[in-house]
Amino acid sequence: MTKTESTREAWRALIARAPGRTSAAGVSTVETIRSMSGLEFLRAIADGRLPHPPMSDTLDFFLVEATRGHAVFMGEARHEFYNPIGSVHGGWACTLLDSCMGCAAQSTLAAGQGYTTVELKVNLVRPLSSETGPVRAEGRVVNAGRTIVTAEGRIVGADGKLYAHGTTTCLVLGL
Amino acid sequence: MTKTESTREAWRALIARAPGRTSAAGVSTVETIRSMSGLEFLRAIADGRLPHPPMSDTLDFFLVEATRGHAVFMGEARHEFYNPIGSVHGGWACTLLDSCMGCAAQSTLAAGQGYTTVELKVNLVRPLSSETGPVRAEGRVVNAGRTIVTAEGRIVGADGKLYAHGTTTCLVLGL
Amino acid sequence: MTKTESTREAWRALIARAPGRTSAAGVSTVETIRSMSGLEFLRAIADGRLPHPPMSDTLDFFLVEATRGHAVFMGEARHEFYNPIGSVHGGWACTLLDSCMGCAAQSTLAAGQGYTTVELKVNLVRPLSSETGPVRAEGRVVNAGRTIVTAEGRIVGADGKLYAHGTTTCLVLGL
Amino acid sequence: MTKTESTREAWRALIARAPGRTSAAGVSTVETIRSMSGLEFLRAIADGRLPHPPMSDTLDFFLVEATRGHAVFMGEARHEFYNPIGSVHGGWACTLLDSCMGCAAQSTLAAGQGYTTVELKVNLVRPLSSETGPVRAEGRVVNAGRTIVTAEGRIVGADGKLYAHGTTTCLVLGL
Repeated sequence: MTKTESTREAWRALIARAPGRTSAAGVSTVETIRSMSGLEFLRAIADGRLPHPPMSDTLDFFLVEATRGHAVFMGEARHEFYNPIGSVHGGWACTLLDSCMGCAAQSTLAAGQGYTTVELKVNLVRPLSSETGPVRAEGRVVNAGRTIVTAEGRIVGADGKLYAHGTTTCLVLGL
Repeated sequence: MTKTESTREAWRALIARAPGRTSAAGVSTVETIRSMSGLEFLRAIADGRLPHPPMSDTLDFFLVEATRGHAVFMGEARHEFYNPIGSVHGGWACTLLDSCMGCAAQSTLAAGQGYTTVELKVNLVRPLSSETGPVRAEGRVVNAGRTIVTAEGRIVGADGKLYAHGTTTCLVLGL
Repeated sequence: MTKTESTREAWRALIARAPGRTSAAGVSTVETIRSMSGLEFLRAIADGRLPHPPMSDTLDFFLVEATRGHAVFMGEARHEFYNPIGSVHGGWACTLLDSCMGCAAQSTLAAGQGYTTVELKVNLVRPLSSETGPVRAEGRVVNAGRTIVTAEGRIVGADGKLYAHGTTTCLVLGL
Repeated sequence: MTKTESTREAWRALIARAPGRTSAAGVSTVETIRSMSGLEFLRAIADGRLPHPPMSDTLDFFLVEATRGHAVFMGEARHEFYNPIGSVHGGWACTLLDSCMGCAAQSTLAAGQGYTTVELKVNLVRPLSSETGPVRAEGRVVNAGRTIVTAEGRIVGADGKLYAHGTTTCLVLGL
């Protein structure tokens, strides 16, 4: 088994047992979101104590790590996510990057603060296919201001290759 | 019935009978893609003569119009597309914009030419919810060079409001 | 004289007599900015009643029109703005687009409101040279929210060709 | 003298003696550019063996370092670069980022290859003023494909603070 293959297996195992995966999908109430810091909220999702988002089930990607300024999702592209011209739709990479970058931003927020993604910009540098296997989407805060938080993100495969990268601008809101 | 409500009904009817919707989902072969101009290919999908993309079924949006330099998708957000904080995941808007902008670019290509999306940039200006109803994602070419085609796109609701807008850069390839 | 040549002459005349050009360059005080709506402030610069920005002199571009949601600068690239590889530095186009898009956003603000540009994204679709002649950079608001205003901009030549286009995100601030 | 002040002095000294600064400004011929790898070309500018670009003099920023996949410019904002609302025009940061990101991309090219910047995206996270002192604009390649090279860049001050960051997409061309 090559190094890529063994990483692929390890990542698939990690996705399969993501606690967030086994919980029901759902949306948290504003009261719940308001009562926790951004990082507490993300960890509760990653641990399965709060529902993981419906979009996670639909596009098969899950939150696996969250620390302050940093969030990681893992997922694997399936045939259901293809565009008509034979590769995974760019929207799948955008969704994973929006998630990991937005959650990296959210992880810096205090209880009572919320956020909205104002914009994101994504470069698609390699085509993703159902052969790519599991990927890791890692978001990291670049600048955390009082009103605006910027973050960057990357999608890498088990082969160590970069598939997409992006940046985002989030607006901090009082909840 | 308000104007917004009647537009909503008309748009839902349009989505329901999108010929592309009733065809099977799938991916076309390179031979098929190569044999047609970009616009012929898109019209064959819109008419149901070629399979619509798997991602269309997964995220519930369909190609409804294609002319040279211009492509329109329509879709409606469901609960399955939500993020954990109570609105539609930004990735849904990105997917619709990537589709309409990329297809606007593709509509300018001759037979034998293909393209890949190099990057896209999306501003999310209003939250989408399952109450928003059907939306229209309209892409339009801004500049069609020999190697690089740029396009812009907008998502508008039946209420006439703008929900998201973006731009993209596509690279033209020989197939 | 071709149509492009006569447009070039007309545009050069317009730049030469831009009232804002003959005023001294300078920066307005916060008190002055606060006392006027965004549009009044821009018109005072265009009319030469308030100083035009120092950067206008340095990179030779001037505000020539401002209406609500819309601002136009004109300028002409010189050898002093070249990059080392034989065309006008991309930063010149970015500066004109930042100006026309930011001012389009500013033109929607009430007295007492200010703004800051959070991000901008620019596509450079044709090289600019000192042969291009005068260009017109036109900014237009796409969405004016209470906190975030987005705008788009285009640089066109007297030949009617598009040279660059972009979008921006501005944050509205109390002054 | 604080750490920021001593860094400021050191950076000013570095800018003052940048060999590229003392050479005449100018543009290299296509023959010269074609005869060197991208990195050789950049080092010849940094060493003063080839002219530094005219825009460097106009906006006062200079190439100080180039290694494979990496380029650094330093500069200091002056009153001449101000916008009308009391801070340095966003176009100055865009110009520095376009330079360091584009040159990082160029540094990966073989002799006979050239490039053009297709697009750039810049986040302005702190206002720059003439009080900021010298800044360092550092570009780094993110992905070097055969046709498309992407890079990212950051502008930091002597105070260690981040002022702006961005990404770019460059198209590789045969010269």
